[in-house]
Amino acid sequence: MDELILLSRDEQLRRQSRMAGMLDGLSADMAVIADNATKYYLTGRVFSGWIVMWPDGESRYFVKRPVHLTGKGVTLVRKPEEITGLISAAPRCIAFEMSTLSVNDFKRLSALWPDAKAVDLSPAVRAARSVKTAAEIDLIRLSGEKQERVYRRVPSLFRPGMTDVQFQIEIERALRLEGCLGQFRISGDSMELFMGNILAGDNADSPTPYDFAMGGAGTDPSLPVGADNTVITPGMTVMVDANGNFTGYMTDMTRTFRFGDVPAEATLAHQCSIDICDMIAETARPGTKASTLYEKAADYAREAGFEPYFMGHRQKAGFVGHGVGIEINEAPVIAPRSRDIIEPGNVIALEPKFVIPGVGAVGIENTYLASENGLECLTNAPAEMLPLD
Amino acid sequence: MDELILLSRDEQLRRQSRMAGMLDGLSADMAVIADNATKYYLTGRVFSGWIVMWPDGESRYFVKRPVHLTGKGVTLVRKPEEITGLISAAPRCIAFEMSTLSVNDFKRLSALWPDAKAVDLSPAVRAARSVKTAAEIDLIRLSGEKQERVYRRVPSLFRPGMTDVQFQIEIERALRLEGCLGQFRISGDSMELFMGNILAGDNADSPTPYDFAMGGAGTDPSLPVGADNTVITPGMTVMVDANGNFTGYMTDMTRTFRFGDVPAEATLAHQCSIDICDMIAETARPGTKASTLYEKAADYAREAGFEPYFMGHRQKAGFVGHGVGIEINEAPVIAPRSRDIIEPGNVIALEPKFVIPGVGAVGIENTYLASENGLECLTNAPAEMLPLD
Repeated sequence: MDELILLSRDEQLRRQSRMAGMLDGLSADMAVIADNATKYYLTGRVFSGWIVMWPDGESRYFVKRPVHLTGKGVTLVRKPEEITGLISAAPRCIAFEMSTLSVNDFKRLSALWPDAKAVDLSPAVRAARSVKTAAEIDLIRLSGEKQERVYRRVPSLFRPGMTDVQFQIEIERALRLEGCLGQFRISGDSMELFMGNILAGDNADSPTPYDFAMGGAGTDPSLPVGADNTVITPGMTVMVDANGNFTGYMTDMTRTFRFGDVPAEATLAHQCSIDICDMIAETARPGTKASTLYEKAADYAREAGFEPYFMGHRQKAGFVGHGVGIEINEAPVIAPRSRDIIEPGNVIALEPKFVIPGVGAVGIENTYLASENGLECLTNAPAEMLPLD
Repeated sequence: MDELILLSRDEQLRRQSRMAGMLDGLSADMAVIADNATKYYLTGRVFSGWIVMWPDGESRYFVKRPVHLTGKGVTLVRKPEEITGLISAAPRCIAFEMSTLSVNDFKRLSALWPDAKAVDLSPAVRAARSVKTAAEIDLIRLSGEKQERVYRRVPSLFRPGMTDVQFQIEIERALRLEGCLGQFRISGDSMELFMGNILAGDNADSPTPYDFAMGGAGTDPSLPVGADNTVITPGMTVMVDANGNFTGYMTDMTRTFRFGDVPAEATLAHQCSIDICDMIAETARPGTKASTLYEKAADYAREAGFEPYFMGHRQKAGFVGHGVGIEINEAPVIAPRSRDIIEPGNVIALEPKFVIPGVGAVGIENTYLASENGLECLTNAPAEMLPLD
């Protein structure tokens, strides 16, 4: 038998109280949690089943699988219908994660308390999880250190004549040998990506269906994103944006490399990306609007003359940064219409990128920790555009 | 500009008519499709947006991204609210995929036609997609051939002293170099796995939260499944169940290898798995109940004396096979309470597996095509337990 809760008691209470505070704000007298990422947040592990939580933070863990879990508040069940007989609550208003729960799962769970009103817990979970605890930040720092170690070795993995896919496979292997879990958690099921995005030359200008910062045609229409078997030839840039999940918490880092010489415009645009990151890192403070940060980034790119290439060329992404943590698309979102406000404890990836036609994508991405003093960079591989050869 | 539909006209009509027939059965006069796997089924590509379909098969494609798609029935939109102004339909009953659509997405889409009733399209999609067309079977055959080519090379990737994770990384690399897309599509968001499950020794007896046939502790509680850094030592079996998505369509194949000698019990149980596969492949015919196939497999294992180890030891899986295609968990399900019936064109993975304490997992998995003559195996790597050394 294993203890279900893998967090220290203090850490568990800290996360519970963040969530419970949110419940209060919703006027919900109970929450039912089914999402793997939120279960991991509240317990330190992924399990099959449901967490029922009350506004005072009290929680019950109804576990379907694995069957050997134990601990305070843990009950093994085969199906959710057993839950009502196991708790005495008669809730009037239940909060569910409606951005991730399927309609059928919602129908089944809400039918357990047919007289209760249902409200959406997703924005509250998003807000709670966007401010990381010290223990979460430790895991994010560790992912950043491991990811950085691999990125420093990226040029040594390149061989002339390689395609982008072949190069990506060697980067994947190096990440995995360093301890990368491979899993790339994205909230919702509409975005798909395998182990990151390696973009060489004009493939960076191929639009994708997904809401990532950059595109790429991919090798198959079932997964139209990323490397597309482009042979990497002199004069191309190669943008490496690879999986940083080493601990259950992700960092997000991009570096751009060049094969041979690239036009001055590409080098300047790359420096512009570095400058934008530095500028945002210095100006972001608690209370800064995320939309303001986006505008500053876009203004900077415009004044540098790179607007046509900013965040894509044929198709543009509508953001320049995003929160990261258990999932790659957390709050705050650094976008024009974002209503997010920077808070201490936010962990934010900034990715001001450019697509230069005929050359490829340029720019960097770093993951930052927001504090009273601005943004601290957690992904410190060299930022300049290093040669592959 | 690229044509949205990547299927031949005949193939598109064939799939549309399967789906449209299902709509008729639901008494729905319209369907709204948002799931990536179903969009890929109906068009041959993944895109961001919505397909609106009518019972006569007529379809409209409302595309959000990528922005360069074109073709008959294709309209670019920024948000779903634009759809109502673009079609003249006043549906009375709309079918949505309620097993995959989130509550919030459902609310937003169903609000577009506030007077219409909503019904569940998921079982119909599941049924339609469970009978593969000739073109789909070609893609599945190709995945099987490529996966088989890699599996034949698995022993050559092993080095004594390796951990299960290190071995898995070399298998991942070999799969990727053969063209594996990496993406492992699973319907719903509760099951997670990276590139397959490599189980060495007693780690096979570690229960997981996920509804896979076998377990494994994994290396991190955020993804508790599969290889756990076990050093592979003589006397252990290593079960290799790795990603077979080379074409957008998957095959599912498992082979078990041994390091040095293993107890006779393990060899016998492995042979029992091969025998069960052969027995089911010969007896399954159109009209056979999936539950009957499960019972035959379980009876065979019981009579061979391996019941305590069948489909797990500390924790057991509740099925012995499942449909595969665009996703790994399609119909039919070969389980005790399954109501599925075998149909020609079903593609079914059978995985009668055993966990022998102190040794590891044994058994095989093959993907079969169901026809009037029984099951044809599409994954033909050698079935016997080959040595790694």
